Amino acid sequence: MKFDVVVIGGGPSGVQTALSARQAYPEKTIALVRREEIALQIGALPHALASLDSVGDCIFPDYLLSQRDIELIFGHVESCDKSTVRLHDSREISYSKLVLAVGGQPNPLSIVGIDQAGVYAITRDYECLKSVRDALHQARCVLLIGGGCTGVEVCNELIRSGKDVTLVESKPDLLSGLIDPEFGQIIRDELVRTGATVVTGCGVRALVGKHSVLGADLDDGRWVTADLVLLTPPFHPDIRLALAMGLRCDSEHGVFVDEYLRTSVPNVHAVGECASGRSFFSAERQRTILTSEAMAQARLAGSNLFAINVAKSYAGSLGSFSCAAGSLVLGVTGLTELKARSIGLEYVVGLAETIDRHPSKLTGASRVVVKLLFDRGSRQLVGAQVLGGESTGECVNMLAVMVQKKMTDMEIDTLQLGTHPLLTPSPLGYGVMGATVDAARHWSSSEHSTLSRSATAPKTSSVKHSNIDGARQTPRQG
Amino acid sequence: MKFDVVVIGGGPSGVQTALSARQAYPEKTIALVRREEIALQIGALPHALASLDSVGDCIFPDYLLSQRDIELIFGHVESCDKSTVRLHDSREISYSKLVLAVGGQPNPLSIVGIDQAGVYAITRDYECLKSVRDALHQARCVLLIGGGCTGVEVCNELIRSGKDVTLVESKPDLLSGLIDPEFGQIIRDELVRTGATVVTGCGVRALVGKHSVLGADLDDGRWVTADLVLLTPPFHPDIRLALAMGLRCDSEHGVFVDEYLRTSVPNVHAVGECASGRSFFSAERQRTILTSEAMAQARLAGSNLFAINVAKSYAGSLGSFSCAAGSLVLGVTGLTELKARSIGLEYVVGLAETIDRHPSKLTGASRVVVKLLFDRGSRQLVGAQVLGGESTGECVNMLAVMVQKKMTDMEIDTLQLGTHPLLTPSPLGYGVMGATVDAARHWSSSEHSTLSRSATAPKTSSVKHSNIDGARQTPRQG
Repeated sequence: MKFDVVVIGGGPSGVQTALSARQAYPEKTIALVRREEIALQIGALPHALASLDSVGDCIFPDYLLSQRDIELIFGHVESCDKSTVRLHDSREISYSKLVLAVGGQPNPLSIVGIDQAGVYAITRDYECLKSVRDALHQARCVLLIGGGCTGVEVCNELIRSGKDVTLVESKPDLLSGLIDPEFGQIIRDELVRTGATVVTGCGVRALVGKHSVLGADLDDGRWVTADLVLLTPPFHPDIRLALAMGLRCDSEHGVFVDEYLRTSVPNVHAVGECASGRSFFSAERQRTILTSEAMAQARLAGSNLFAINVAKSYAGSLGSFSCAAGSLVLGVTGLTELKARSIGLEYVVGLAETIDRHPSKLTGASRVVVKLLFDRGSRQLVGAQVLGGESTGECVNMLAVMVQKKMTDMEIDTLQLGTHPLLTPSPLGYGVMGATVDAARHWSSSEHSTLSRSATAPKTSSVKHSNIDGARQTPRQG
Repeated sequence: MKFDVVVIGGGPSGVQTALSARQAYPEKTIALVRREEIALQIGALPHALASLDSVGDCIFPDYLLSQRDIELIFGHVESCDKSTVRLHDSREISYSKLVLAVGGQPNPLSIVGIDQAGVYAITRDYECLKSVRDALHQARCVLLIGGGCTGVEVCNELIRSGKDVTLVESKPDLLSGLIDPEFGQIIRDELVRTGATVVTGCGVRALVGKHSVLGADLDDGRWVTADLVLLTPPFHPDIRLALAMGLRCDSEHGVFVDEYLRTSVPNVHAVGECASGRSFFSAERQRTILTSEAMAQARLAGSNLFAINVAKSYAGSLGSFSCAAGSLVLGVTGLTELKARSIGLEYVVGLAETIDRHPSKLTGASRVVVKLLFDRGSRQLVGAQVLGGESTGECVNMLAVMVQKKMTDMEIDTLQLGTHPLLTPSPLGYGVMGATVDAARHWSSSEHSTLSRSATAPKTSSVKHSNIDGARQTPRQG
C-alpha cells in the first residue's frame, strides 16, 4: 500500500489531522491506521457509564473518515522507518508524510491488591468500558481512585445513577495542578452536596478482598467499604514508536515538535498526547494533556504537511478545558495562580460574582464566579477560571480567544458583548467585565482579590432567590 | 446642587456610565438624574409579561447606585446649559461633565383604531407594563404588531402562557435588517411550531372594535380576531434636549459623538440610544440600537470623562445580540450578508451544522447552525450568525471578540478552544471551526455556501436521534 499521508492513531487528534489534511490537500491520498476495531469518543467516556444508554452510544462514527476519502486501516504498527510503516501482520504501507498520533498510555499504579476481581480501570477500550458498565450494574458502593477531570466526572455520573461513591485523591485538592485550590474546593463541595464522599490528601494503602474486592485501607488508617473499585490512572505519552524510529523525544514530555508539529525527522509529524507541547506563556516544554491543545496541533499539522503556512503555526499550549460536577461547570483557560507563580509571572487577580440570568429570578439561573489573571507589566489577560452554568464552556472559549490575542484589560473594556435575560448575566453585571474592572483596583498594589468565604460555599439552592442582578465584586480578605 | 459628573437617564447606558465613572474617578461626585420613580431592566421586559411572577421582579435595583456613592436624583430635566441642569421643579444641578443617556422614544404608529380600549404598547414604563400584564390575564386571543426582537420574544412569552397569538410584521421577514432572511425563516418556523400564527409582508389596515378591540383588518384583506392588541413600536433617538442645547445631532441618528463619546460641546458626552454610533466596518454614521453597543459606549464614556485614554476608544458599532424563540436561540455579531452587500464589502460565507452535545444522544442536545462571513480580500471574520441552544449567547460573544480583533480564518484555525460532551459540539465538529473550514473552499470562487433546504426546516424533535457528531458542512445549492 502507498499513501501520500499516513496518520497512526484513531483518537481525536489523529482523526482531526486526517480531516485537516484532506481539507488542505484535496488531491492527496490519506490513510489512518488504527489498532482498535471500535474507537470511542474519548472525551465522553465518563458519560458512557450512566448518562448514555450504552457504551455503544459513545462509538466514534467511522463514516466521518470514509466520506472524506480517508482510508481506515486496522492494524498494530510493528515498526516504521523513514518511508514505510510495517504492521504486525507484515502488511507494509509506504508514505510521503507520516503523522504520529498514538496518544498516551496509563501509568501503572502500584497499589497492593490492585489485581483482584472487582477492580477496574477506566481505559479507552470499548470492551473494557463495557465490562466496567456491566459490573457497575451489580455494584452499590464504589471506590473511585483519582480526582482528576475523569475522576470528577465519573464520580458525578455514578452519583447520578444512584451509587454510593467514595472518591479518593492522594493530592491535597481535586483537579490538582489544573485549577486553583479554591475552585477545587467548590467542586469538592458540590460533589459532597450531591452525595459523594470525597477524601483528598490521602492515598490508598491496600485494596482488600476475598474472592472479590471488599474495600480499601487508606493511608490514614480509614477503611472504605466498596464492592467495586474504579481507577482513573493518569496517562503518559506513548513514545515507543518514536524511540524505535530515533525521533528526539523524552518519556516525560513526548516527541519533540516545532511550531509546525514537525519532529526531528523531516517528513514525520507528531500531534496530541504523544507530542511534546510548549507553554504559550513561558515557551517551556510541557506535555500535551488537553483535547483543546491536541486539536489545534492536529489542525495545524494537517494543513502544514507539504508546505508550511506561517500564519498557521502553533503558539504553545494554553490549557483550555471544562469540567462538569453536579449543577456546576468549571471552565479554565491559560494560567492559574499556581502556574503563574511557577513560571515567575507577576500577576493581578480580578474577581466577580454574578448570576447568569437577569433578572436572577428567571428559571435556570446559576451563580457565576469569574477569576481573571492579568500580567502586571503588560496588563494582558493571561488566564481565566469561570464557574457557572451551561454556557460556561463557550464563555471560557471567549476568554481563551482574548488570552491568545493578548488582550489587555483596557481592550476588554472596549468590547461589545451581547447579553440576554435567559442566557447571560445582565449587561451591568457581566462577570468578565466585572472581574476586569476589579483587577484594575490592584495594578499598583501587591494585594490580590481572593474569593470571599461565602463565595466558596455552595449556594445553588439560594440562587433563585438572590437579588444580585449586577456583578458583585467580592470583598478582599484580610 | 453641584456634582463633578451628572448623567441624565436611568437606563442601562446611564447607569453603566455612572458606574464606570465611579471606577475611573473614585474622588469625583457623581449624580444620575432619572425621570422614573421605578426603573425597569429593559432587556427583560418581554419576560415580565409571563415568565416572571410580576413586573416587580423586573425592577432595576437602585442600591447598585447608592452602594457606589452615586446620587440618584428623581426629576424631569427642563433644560441644560453648558454648566447647569434645570429640573421642572426649578431645582438646579451644576456640573463639570454632563452625560446624556436619555435613550429613545417610540415612533408613533398610524393605524386606524389604535386609540381604542384593548390596544396597548410595550413601553419601558413600570405602570404601563403592569397594566399590559393585568390585561393579558383576561385575554385569550392576542394580536401582536411588530416582528422585531421585542415582538419575537413577547410572542414567545405569550405562547408559553397559553395565549392564542398572531404576530404581524409588515416587512417580509422577522427581525428584518438584523439577520439574514434564512434565519428569520427558522425563527418564524419555530414560533409557528410552538403555536403562533405569523404573518409577514403585510401591514395592519385598521383595528376594529366596539367598546374594546375585536380584531384587525390586514392589508391583504384577512381578518384577525383579537381581544387584546399589543404594539412593539420601533424607537428613535431622543434628541430634544440635545437640540435645545445646540449639540450637533440629527433625528435619524441621534447626537453626534466622537470615539470618546464627546459631543460637539466639550464637556458634554452622549451614550446609548440617544447617541449616534458609527459602523465598525464602514465608519458610516448609524443609530445605536443594541445594548451591547450602548454598554461599550457607556463604559468608555465613563472612563474618558476627565482625561482621554487612547487605549479606550470606541471602535464603532458591531451589532451583537441574541434572541430566544421556542427552544432556539439566535445570536448575531458583525455583518450579515445584507449589511455586507449594502456597504459594498466582498465576502465569503462559511456554514456548518452540528449538535451542541457529543455524543448527540446526550440529553439537552440542540442543533447548531453557524454562518460566518469573511472579508474576501483580507480573510478577516466580519460577521457571524449562530443558531443553537443555551450556550449560543456566549458562543456569539466569542465570535464578537474575533471580529473586533480582526482575526483571519487562518488565525481562527490556530485557536485552542475547549469542548465538553455536556456543553459543546464535539472537538471534531465544533461549528465555528467547521464554518471557517467551509469558507476556505470559496476564497477563489464567487459562489457562496447557503443553508440547505433541509437545514432551514425545524428539526428540534429529531435532534436527539441524530447521528451527527461531527460538523456537517451543508451542501451548496444549485
